[in-house]
Amino acid sequence: MATPVKVAKTESWDVCFDAAVEVARKAGEEIRSAFSSEKRIETKSCAVDLVTETDQKVEKMIISTLREKFPTHSFIGEESAAAGEKVELTDNPTWIIDPVDGTTNFVHGFPFVAVSIALSVNKEVVVGVVYNAILDQMFTGQLGKGAFMNGKPIHVSGQEELSQSLLISEFGSSRDKEKMDLVFSNLGSFLNENNSAHGVRSMGSAALNMSHVACGGGDAYFEFGIHCWDVAAGYLVVKEAGGVTLDTTGGPFDMMSRRVLCASSVKLARTIAEGLTQMELERD
Amino acid sequence: MATPVKVAKTESWDVCFDAAVEVARKAGEEIRSAFSSEKRIETKSCAVDLVTETDQKVEKMIISTLREKFPTHSFIGEESAAAGEKVELTDNPTWIIDPVDGTTNFVHGFPFVAVSIALSVNKEVVVGVVYNAILDQMFTGQLGKGAFMNGKPIHVSGQEELSQSLLISEFGSSRDKEKMDLVFSNLGSFLNENNSAHGVRSMGSAALNMSHVACGGGDAYFEFGIHCWDVAAGYLVVKEAGGVTLDTTGGPFDMMSRRVLCASSVKLARTIAEGLTQMELERD
Repeated sequence: MATPVKVAKTESWDVCFDAAVEVARKAGEEIRSAFSSEKRIETKSCAVDLVTETDQKVEKMIISTLREKFPTHSFIGEESAAAGEKVELTDNPTWIIDPVDGTTNFVHGFPFVAVSIALSVNKEVVVGVVYNAILDQMFTGQLGKGAFMNGKPIHVSGQEELSQSLLISEFGSSRDKEKMDLVFSNLGSFLNENNSAHGVRSMGSAALNMSHVACGGGDAYFEFGIHCWDVAAGYLVVKEAGGVTLDTTGGPFDMMSRRVLCASSVKLARTIAEGLTQMELERD
Repeated sequence: MATPVKVAKTESWDVCFDAAVEVARKAGEEIRSAFSSEKRIETKSCAVDLVTETDQKVEKMIISTLREKFPTHSFIGEESAAAGEKVELTDNPTWIIDPVDGTTNFVHGFPFVAVSIALSVNKEVVVGVVYNAILDQMFTGQLGKGAFMNGKPIHVSGQEELSQSLLISEFGSSRDKEKMDLVFSNLGSFLNENNSAHGVRSMGSAALNMSHVACGGGDAYFEFGIHCWDVAAGYLVVKEAGGVTLDTTGGPFDMMSRRVLCASSVKLARTIAEGLTQMELERD
């Protein structure tokens, strides 16, 4: 059982950051080599929510590598949660891991597949790493030290106006009628004659959607139904790139609430929050 | 005035293919260098339909390069059409060019921006080149000679079942209520409790959407409102990769009809065509 460790905000998490980048790259190699080969698919909650051998294998590798280096740390992983492990975020240094964010993309060979690794300390994310294994794009953030893509500093666009924005969102994996009606109605509030963004893109990976907002490739991203492992690392990358992550209501971001809204500016985030019909979801 | 040239189907268009690849790569260099710099934007038909200096400059470069090599050939280009030139597809060898497919992406720094160059002879596409300038992915097709990505053969997934498919579609650039209602209703017919694909992705470039179906990264793509220069090259890449392109009704593909439906199999294309509410558009 890990012992909670009280840490000062200024403590250096460099060694954890380096370990996260290294293990993400190693995970990326496994993902790349499996990407074009035959995949054995089990269904998770339903037919559209896919899980592969690679997810499970990669998560085990990441957790065992990090646990060996940091034996007192705690772990939250997508596949461990799916296998019934309790998801609990305490003040103890906790690694929050999605081994393959964009599993549907992975299964189909659509090249947006990421490893997402975050470290939370006192419930604050101090390290965030999102690695697009197929396109070899490493997005990183370290608290107070900026955000980078393949080592080059990245920044949000700074866009404040919805009418000048490129949005990113997703249709999600639920096919429940009420949920789908809400997805379409929310998209429709930003794509109509009176109120329109430049467009909406969907890449199928929350971690990469956030990373693309961080590097200015999109101005905002929102989604209902995500989990903490999808957004923990992206949250810090966006923050360190000068962006903002809020709850979809416009209130403070709650990593366990299953809702995310990040944007290049507070003004744009608030405008989008006002246009969204909210959805209550079971917490992580 | 170009003189119509009668050509046999078996005639080699290798020299044209090589020229298309070369000029696409040169165009890609210009696009890449402009990608992260300041862009001057004029509005085209409306605020969401953007045109940049780069589009115009790159199209001029492509046409002048190809015209010098092939002085009797005809040309159809997106920017020339926008400037009022007549769009006319005859039997004469005709280059169909979109200098920057995904202009909105280009303006926003979203990394799906392609050069699309096709050569049509006797109204049949014999050369198709789609180059993602940012990610350096060159998709090519030559009639009867297969499809490639960066020189490696590519193939469609062969998927026949909608329930196992990853679809690609777009919200389009019109914000007309009737059009948007139809876009959402068409997406909804493949994302509901009774009839559901694995998901829908939107990258904002018709040429790249088709190329991703060609390499198996998506199983089908449909859109209303595209133009011939968006799909001419992609059509051949899909065909040579073993896929099929039809009209959205399920009938034969008509490059000037502003409608496209391509898929990894005829069966999947037919299933999607049956689920679509059709839209009539002014022809190219």
